Amino acid sequence: MRIAERMRLLGTETAFAVAERAAAHAAAGHKVYPFHLGDLNFKTPEYIVEAALRAIRDGRTGYCPNGGLPTLRAALADDFNARRGTKHSLENVSVQPGGKPVIGKFIQTVMNPGDEALYPSPGYPIYESLIEFHGAKARPYGFITGQDGFHIDLDALERAITPRTRLLIVNDFHNPTGASCSPREHEKLAELALRHDLMLLLDEAYFEIQYEGPARSIAGLPGMAERCLVLYTFGKKFAMTGWRLGAAIGPPEVISLITRLNTNIESCTTHFIQYAGLAALQGNTNEAEAMLQALRERRDTAVSLLNSAPGVHCFTPAASFYLYPELSALMGQKGFGSDYAAFAEDVLLKTGVSFCTRLHFGRPLPEEKGLHARLAFSGIDIHEIKEGLEKFRLYAAGA
Amino acid sequence: MRIAERMRLLGTETAFAVAERAAAHAAAGHKVYPFHLGDLNFKTPEYIVEAALRAIRDGRTGYCPNGGLPTLRAALADDFNARRGTKHSLENVSVQPGGKPVIGKFIQTVMNPGDEALYPSPGYPIYESLIEFHGAKARPYGFITGQDGFHIDLDALERAITPRTRLLIVNDFHNPTGASCSPREHEKLAELALRHDLMLLLDEAYFEIQYEGPARSIAGLPGMAERCLVLYTFGKKFAMTGWRLGAAIGPPEVISLITRLNTNIESCTTHFIQYAGLAALQGNTNEAEAMLQALRERRDTAVSLLNSAPGVHCFTPAASFYLYPELSALMGQKGFGSDYAAFAEDVLLKTGVSFCTRLHFGRPLPEEKGLHARLAFSGIDIHEIKEGLEKFRLYAAGA
Repeated sequence: MRIAERMRLLGTETAFAVAERAAAHAAAGHKVYPFHLGDLNFKTPEYIVEAALRAIRDGRTGYCPNGGLPTLRAALADDFNARRGTKHSLENVSVQPGGKPVIGKFIQTVMNPGDEALYPSPGYPIYESLIEFHGAKARPYGFITGQDGFHIDLDALERAITPRTRLLIVNDFHNPTGASCSPREHEKLAELALRHDLMLLLDEAYFEIQYEGPARSIAGLPGMAERCLVLYTFGKKFAMTGWRLGAAIGPPEVISLITRLNTNIESCTTHFIQYAGLAALQGNTNEAEAMLQALRERRDTAVSLLNSAPGVHCFTPAASFYLYPELSALMGQKGFGSDYAAFAEDVLLKTGVSFCTRLHFGRPLPEEKGLHARLAFSGIDIHEIKEGLEKFRLYAAGA
Repeated sequence: MRIAERMRLLGTETAFAVAERAAAHAAAGHKVYPFHLGDLNFKTPEYIVEAALRAIRDGRTGYCPNGGLPTLRAALADDFNARRGTKHSLENVSVQPGGKPVIGKFIQTVMNPGDEALYPSPGYPIYESLIEFHGAKARPYGFITGQDGFHIDLDALERAITPRTRLLIVNDFHNPTGASCSPREHEKLAELALRHDLMLLLDEAYFEIQYEGPARSIAGLPGMAERCLVLYTFGKKFAMTGWRLGAAIGPPEVISLITRLNTNIESCTTHFIQYAGLAALQGNTNEAEAMLQALRERRDTAVSLLNSAPGVHCFTPAASFYLYPELSALMGQKGFGSDYAAFAEDVLLKTGVSFCTRLHFGRPLPEEKGLHARLAFSGIDIHEIKEGLEKFRLYAAGA
């Protein structure tokens, strides 16, 4: 069978293989501690479920507008403005079946073949995959280790800009490192975007998973509303990942084209689920706050246990639900060198702890230092975190 | 703002403009008879709604496999085999957020830039839009008027095949004409596919909206399973259009690539809605049969009234919920010649009857005969059909 040439450029999320390996290990009768899952093990709040059911009973089961319900678009614009200091209205919002569809639709809307896009590495592997798939060139930028955590390597990022650079992807509140940009870093990125006439894809999926006060967005800085498209998702804040509800939020000219892509690709996002999203935005925030508090306790417990393990160092991220411990001393001591796959398999077999490594987030950059794993604490309860990471500590201690 | 060049190639569904015009006319206090809607005004059967709710309560609100739940994929393969005579298994099925996503994903999987695809005109406008958007060449084929209805112009189709032709799109049970292929036509299409090494996209969205016994599929003919990808949807049969649930069903090599596209584009289809789909397939068929019976009554009433209008001729389609009456005598007599827009506006203003015309389904072909409108009877109750088309009859009679 003849397959189109472009399909050779399409990447995937190799982290799914980790989930399969963990499932096979569990199916063989072993205890598994699932730190590989970037998903939430919380229930969707009941008032959101009730709103979906009410919408079904009200007959919201047929098609709806391609760009989403006007009421939901307006509510999203209001919520966005309140948190990011913008002046958006419903013309700035196109509802999507999840946050992820925003990545490919924006790339198709602004990138010509041969244009270049800067993307984070380590980072969500779909950025590189879709940049290349749509005929553009993917240029990675890295992170440096600071006193308190990870930061975008701004000097290297600036050096990577060429006259063909068209798009800068920023995953502020970053998967996998948990890095958050400082106000000074936001200003620097905005200044680069203006100077080099770049569009910005702001993947702010973790914007509301914040442990140290409210987040800020580059989209709120002067001159940025016109060139930032924000990936918005209901999934993480409201424990709705499997509902598939998100939005593209940005300049009306881009939004109207993204809505035209909706018309061609999926017609519309599930009708009654948009009423659930409206309820989520308008409901009380108690359940989202309780979930954030539970995540904070998991984070602190996990970081503390990881740092008690010999040969491991882990920062405490201010946002997201990912830990990115440095493991080169432990991996060296155990005789694995830089062989991530053998190390992860050994840890799984001896402790049941399942996690992703640096390699699930793109090819390491030449100048990159250290060896890292990514542990998510979103899909595992605190007593399992304690039990699993205590086993990991004993493993590291050689017991 | 610099927009990517490919966006100039992206079409849309102009039928949405008809819906907007009708809504504006209704908002101004006028009675509107909505024959423009390709949507259903039936409730989703309660056992399907209950299954979705049960899945939410069971916590099916997180991510699920990119290609869909294995149980749903297997059930779809079984249902497909029973109706089409294939021997598929779950490897042949990739669950999608609706039927529509299959079109673009298949084109991207098998078409290189410069390859040619044959598509029906009149036809669903998304075919031409996505062929061109992804860099291929769109070549229309037309229909001829037979004794009992419309048929694909097989001679013209064959003449349009070139060495660059890679894909043939067949919308058997055709929107807008209601045309169904005969067994002889199926065999001819299969023979052309084998002789010219074509892939087939079979848009069978209306496969189960059949008034004269069960449908057959080209996919069941010898040698076809390897080269047919079927667009399957839950929307039409189960009154679930706004739920967004469908599937790509075809060769495993194509299916695995389409699932890789899912990973990149939308992660997965809404988790709990897949349990609703499973219930739909496994539930009793009484409600689907009752809906089909209601559609049959609407069809017969509408066809009869249209044929009683002077200057109008309408076939009775054996499948789908569309009528495609020929109106050139009426349009001429009313002084509109071939001006569809002015005619449709005049009918709307004088009778409230709202419909689409030939022009909403692509550019007319040079050899095409007659002037046609498309009336959908899926979104309008039978008493409104009677009332609206009686007004239309009086309009046509000059009263």
